[in-house]
Amino acid sequence: VIHVASRSIAAQALSIFGDHSDVMAARSTGFAMLSSDSVQEASDFALIALAASVESRVPFLHFFDGFRTSHEVSKIEPLSEAALRSCLNEALIFEHRRRALSPDHPVLRGTSQNPDVYFQARETVNPFYAACPDVTQAVMDRFRAVAGREYRLFEYHGDPDAERVIVLMGSGCEAVHETVDDLNAGGERVGVVKVRLYRPFDVKRFVEAFPRSVRSIAVLDRTKEPGSAGEPLYLDAVTAFHEAVMGGEGELKSIPVLIGGRYGLSSKEFTPGMIKGIFDHLASESPRNHFTIGIRDDVGGTSLAYDSEFRTKSEGVWGGLFFGLGSDGTVGANRNSIKIIGEKTDFFTQAYFVYDSKKAGSVTVSHLRFSPNPIRSTYLVDRADFVGCHQWMFLERFDVLKDIVPGGTFLLNSPHGPEAVWDNLPETVQESILSKQLKFFVIDALQVAHESGMGGLINTVMQTCFFALSGILPEAEAIEAIKESIRSTYGKKGEEIVKMNVTAVDHARSRLHRVEVPDRVTSRIRMTPAVAEEAPVFVREVLGKIIAGAGNDLPVSAFPADGTYPTGTARWEKRNLAQEIPVWDPKVCIYCGKCAMVCPHGVIRIKVYDPKFLEGAPATFKSCETKEKEWSGLKYTIQVAPEDCTGCGICVDICPAKNKSETRLKAINMVPQPPLREQERENWNFFLGLPERDRDSIKRTTIRQEQVQEPLFEFSGACAGCGETPYLKLATQLFGDRMIVANATGCSSIYGGNLPTTPWTKNAEGFGPAWSNSLFE
Amino acid sequence: VIHVASRSIAAQALSIFGDHSDVMAARSTGFAMLSSDSVQEASDFALIALAASVESRVPFLHFFDGFRTSHEVSKIEPLSEAALRSCLNEALIFEHRRRALSPDHPVLRGTSQNPDVYFQARETVNPFYAACPDVTQAVMDRFRAVAGREYRLFEYHGDPDAERVIVLMGSGCEAVHETVDDLNAGGERVGVVKVRLYRPFDVKRFVEAFPRSVRSIAVLDRTKEPGSAGEPLYLDAVTAFHEAVMGGEGELKSIPVLIGGRYGLSSKEFTPGMIKGIFDHLASESPRNHFTIGIRDDVGGTSLAYDSEFRTKSEGVWGGLFFGLGSDGTVGANRNSIKIIGEKTDFFTQAYFVYDSKKAGSVTVSHLRFSPNPIRSTYLVDRADFVGCHQWMFLERFDVLKDIVPGGTFLLNSPHGPEAVWDNLPETVQESILSKQLKFFVIDALQVAHESGMGGLINTVMQTCFFALSGILPEAEAIEAIKESIRSTYGKKGEEIVKMNVTAVDHARSRLHRVEVPDRVTSRIRMTPAVAEEAPVFVREVLGKIIAGAGNDLPVSAFPADGTYPTGTARWEKRNLAQEIPVWDPKVCIYCGKCAMVCPHGVIRIKVYDPKFLEGAPATFKSCETKEKEWSGLKYTIQVAPEDCTGCGICVDICPAKNKSETRLKAINMVPQPPLREQERENWNFFLGLPERDRDSIKRTTIRQEQVQEPLFEFSGACAGCGETPYLKLATQLFGDRMIVANATGCSSIYGGNLPTTPWTKNAEGFGPAWSNSLFE
Repeated sequence: VIHVASRSIAAQALSIFGDHSDVMAARSTGFAMLSSDSVQEASDFALIALAASVESRVPFLHFFDGFRTSHEVSKIEPLSEAALRSCLNEALIFEHRRRALSPDHPVLRGTSQNPDVYFQARETVNPFYAACPDVTQAVMDRFRAVAGREYRLFEYHGDPDAERVIVLMGSGCEAVHETVDDLNAGGERVGVVKVRLYRPFDVKRFVEAFPRSVRSIAVLDRTKEPGSAGEPLYLDAVTAFHEAVMGGEGELKSIPVLIGGRYGLSSKEFTPGMIKGIFDHLASESPRNHFTIGIRDDVGGTSLAYDSEFRTKSEGVWGGLFFGLGSDGTVGANRNSIKIIGEKTDFFTQAYFVYDSKKAGSVTVSHLRFSPNPIRSTYLVDRADFVGCHQWMFLERFDVLKDIVPGGTFLLNSPHGPEAVWDNLPETVQESILSKQLKFFVIDALQVAHESGMGGLINTVMQTCFFALSGILPEAEAIEAIKESIRSTYGKKGEEIVKMNVTAVDHARSRLHRVEVPDRVTSRIRMTPAVAEEAPVFVREVLGKIIAGAGNDLPVSAFPADGTYPTGTARWEKRNLAQEIPVWDPKVCIYCGKCAMVCPHGVIRIKVYDPKFLEGAPATFKSCETKEKEWSGLKYTIQVAPEDCTGCGICVDICPAKNKSETRLKAINMVPQPPLREQERENWNFFLGLPERDRDSIKRTTIRQEQVQEPLFEFSGACAGCGETPYLKLATQLFGDRMIVANATGCSSIYGGNLPTTPWTKNAEGFGPAWSNSLFE
Repeated sequence: VIHVASRSIAAQALSIFGDHSDVMAARSTGFAMLSSDSVQEASDFALIALAASVESRVPFLHFFDGFRTSHEVSKIEPLSEAALRSCLNEALIFEHRRRALSPDHPVLRGTSQNPDVYFQARETVNPFYAACPDVTQAVMDRFRAVAGREYRLFEYHGDPDAERVIVLMGSGCEAVHETVDDLNAGGERVGVVKVRLYRPFDVKRFVEAFPRSVRSIAVLDRTKEPGSAGEPLYLDAVTAFHEAVMGGEGELKSIPVLIGGRYGLSSKEFTPGMIKGIFDHLASESPRNHFTIGIRDDVGGTSLAYDSEFRTKSEGVWGGLFFGLGSDGTVGANRNSIKIIGEKTDFFTQAYFVYDSKKAGSVTVSHLRFSPNPIRSTYLVDRADFVGCHQWMFLERFDVLKDIVPGGTFLLNSPHGPEAVWDNLPETVQESILSKQLKFFVIDALQVAHESGMGGLINTVMQTCFFALSGILPEAEAIEAIKESIRSTYGKKGEEIVKMNVTAVDHARSRLHRVEVPDRVTSRIRMTPAVAEEAPVFVREVLGKIIAGAGNDLPVSAFPADGTYPTGTARWEKRNLAQEIPVWDPKVCIYCGKCAMVCPHGVIRIKVYDPKFLEGAPATFKSCETKEKEWSGLKYTIQVAPEDCTGCGICVDICPAKNKSETRLKAINMVPQPPLREQERENWNFFLGLPERDRDSIKRTTIRQEQVQEPLFEFSGACAGCGETPYLKLATQLFGDRMIVANATGCSSIYGGNLPTTPWTKNAEGFGPAWSNSLFE
């Protein structure tokens, strides 16, 4: 038995997200395939798959949706000892073990057969596959008897006289179930067939699962097989109905209207709006076959229209959205909060976390729900009662209040107090607060964290405010639960860490303020464009939208058909991640070039140029003489790209020059970014305009000279302080003018070990003479 | 574009033979898939696949049946320069090359995409797949214009008003085509749809390929996917008809009777009898779906009955069967003969060779056809005008005359002359010769080869006789062609080799004799049973049938469902391969044990035992004293298994003892086997009954003692003189009492190099101290 969190197979691009393309690629293997739809089912079916496999002697592949199910935090009923004992036949387990290869009773497996007998021997397994569906259903029945949860191989839910039915498997079943209930409550007659045992595919049971009243069916596949007559589940469904009609046993005289469609590739959202769109489509005169849902296909015309504003009623469901920065602790705190709610209340809970695939320094959004009823919303929170924005800078980059409900609560981590904050908000934020009549709260979480001795770690502070505002638990109880969890999480790290966190909790409450909201929008602050206006059109209109979080709106035509993209586009994404950036002090500098060399992102650069080019330089642009003989008479500048720098500080670590007048300083020093941003942006742009030096005139064997070359690997998107990218950057400079970097993802992948990231240079000698010679002249 | 000789994926056993399970496992990749049915088509479609891929920008997988097509020798029309130029669009080739990754115009491929955009980007390819069928048909049309051969994506052949149609792809199409012609000539109305472009599957063109008159359809898949709703092509066919009915464009109001079946797994024969069986089945009231054809499924009941005696008329087709021993040159000679016929005449030709998967020492059967008309018989020769038996010993093992036609010609390589031969023939052979009134010829090819200086190489001799008897070419011309081919094949090896072969040709003609056949059967010689009567029932009834060449007759129930077989069964297969076997001379022996050690097959064994056990020993059973102190007073015997020995002679090579009275002899010497067979079989059986020595009492660090252990790896089936198996055998003796050998196929696979096989011991030091210590005390 293999349990698979199913994910996309790389096609035009790789994706780490979820669909069924991987398990579907294994459907010809002869494994039985069991699909579970939720965290509870993944747990239940793990047992059912095991029991059915032992009993049927067919290997099982049990799968569930990668990320949507595998990474969801949900309150479930764990498997009991009784359920385990009732499902698993011990005698069969011992039989299974006896069949293992053993020198005590040797047998031969893995023979070689010829055309005379292979075919016959291949057909020996048929009775096992024929029996497998019955065996699996029997195990499910035994499971129900003891665990109380009922499962069927093909499970119908909906109106008993439904005319329109959707068929699918995986987490989408839950969303369709919820939408079916919502639509039927509104007087429609629709239903869903959830496919649990996909292989062996029991054609008879499949057809029997439908109500007699069905007139049109949409079979949804979460995979794409270009060139096939249809996606896999659709082909099976058509065949099942064909055989029912041909068999002539039932009343079925012809196949109903039966169409197939694709949805949710690579964790694309699958929402009630889309589901309603499919049901509406099934009611049309001659529905389009092989449709897609959830995208806008302006190339092949496959996509169905749907109302993205449609929401199920979901009465009693509370939703929350939390915007954090990768590695700022927001996700961990929310995971903890939902656990507290799940354990301390009778509510059903759900938490799901959206990350960028860039590892650190990107936005993370936590989607939390709790409800007195089971939660089947296997899609992102689209109606938030609460929004927490844990980073001030997001206000200019994302519309964090887009999905908040009228009258909802908005908690903002703000460097500005309750009086000053309003005037610093962007216009759209003010508009949302007013039009939706939000309750608006601020806290300077960074300051509270600092005061409690926790440096920049704001997660405990924000978590405390959430509980204070949400009121889900009596405040005292919530605070005690947070402290309890602090003790269990940080206990091992020592009493001091625990004490700091507890202090932060106590301080947080008193520093949380409601903001008195004026009656009209006063701000002139606009959202920051994702990329500069000067960027090429593809960068502005495609990549820029993705950066701005609006990738879902891009139509099919926006993308190159062969997965080929222009290079050098990362330069247009100004991430402005650094709180502090390095500033060069020419008076102390010894021109060694090491600061530029170690920068993982290529954001510290050196140029050597004729003094005449200084004409028209910005007032704050710095330059000096160099000590290199070959460059006598030329000017020398070290320039930082202020909006690309991630603020890791490795350049400062490596700088060997000492400022004799102030010994804590070097020739390059970290300084807060915001006040410098404008000025240094101007300097950087001027710097880029200075001529590049002819590479052939540069001595590549000394760092001080070779770092003057134009870097060909820049703005890598790696984590701040990455120990890997500088080698790639350096390699482009040492070994050739041109280099194709095929794969640079994943720290520690290239050198196969854990490189110390800060300060990595101390260990650089270990990489062998060729490297260290170059690194240290 | 990938060209695939498709082969079975290992399931209950591995198989090196052909079916579509490998390419079908790749059908979800998005490759276009083009299937060719014959050697001519494999050549034509190689070009068409390339041209269509360049034009459609879809990657192509072009496949044809492994072995049946890939290993068939056939007369084809090669692709002309004109065809190449007409099909390949040069401008597109240059465009294709321009899209290659190049540092001169860098682009990014292999990006990472997130849920926001992956789905849209995945759908960009739809227009390419939609256009691909048209593009491929257009290329086929261009190809026809210049090459004259017409191909369609789905190609119908048969009666324009056929009611019953078979759908399939691959080499089987040819056999169905032939059978359809034969049946329609007899007044039936049947047809075949050959699938050429399997992906992208054009549902519209597929349905249009059928005559309007069709009432029942069988879709044949040469693959098996246990647990699926049906095999792949069947699912596609059902879906295509469903969409045609649902689309409502044509006149089609409902799906015809449409069933699926499996055939030909792992190169299982697919014959006109089976094809007629399917057509007959399609005429039945309610035909069975998911059938198999070509086997007897007494477990799942899937198999259709068919008349195995049915033959198409195949007028003008000449068939020949040639039985040779692996590595005796028969296959090479037949390959050469068919080439001569193809080149010197206007006949179409076909040659196909059946090997055992045991590498050497097994039977090879060459199946040759020529005909004034194209040959579509993609199955073995089932009606032979000529049978050549190149090894006398086969007469007792196989019914070589089973498929010869009445009045056919039988050529036998016989050590007995034309007068003596009759009395030495087995009873069944005499019966066939008489009842079928065969023309019977003999030649002592081995003697001719010896006299011509060619040792045991009889291929040239037998080839000459074939041309002399078949009369396909004027004899002088044929002989000149053989000599020509000798000069071109052996020219590089020197004039002497050429001369020997030419001499053999000249001698052959004069030593070929027709046998005067008496008027009745006189022989009492029976066929040798494949395994001994004492063998376990599974060995007798299953493995024994396979060894006897009757594996095709075994039903499904004969085979274990989980691929688990008993061990130690090879001992029952008495291959009698050796012309000469080693004979032990106790007077010369120094008891070093090396002869037993080096034997790759475990057929020389040593036992040390109490003299009392010699009671009742056969008269010729040998024994002597030993010089080992620990064994004083015990008897010592070295015994050869006469019918298992392959005659490699390595034991003699390694024997260090010299016979002082006759220096060419050692303590073990090669002697012709047949006169010794009976006696040594008796000695071997007596020897096996002697008690085994307690392993713990044996010093395993000396060869002279450790070789007394019972070998746990025996009768390996490896090539004679294999350099690999002795290590495995030795390892079982040195390193443990019990060992599981997971994979011992393929010379040179375990030590990763080319071990010299004879005499391998000279190089044994090279394997490292651990080995050489053990090997040479």
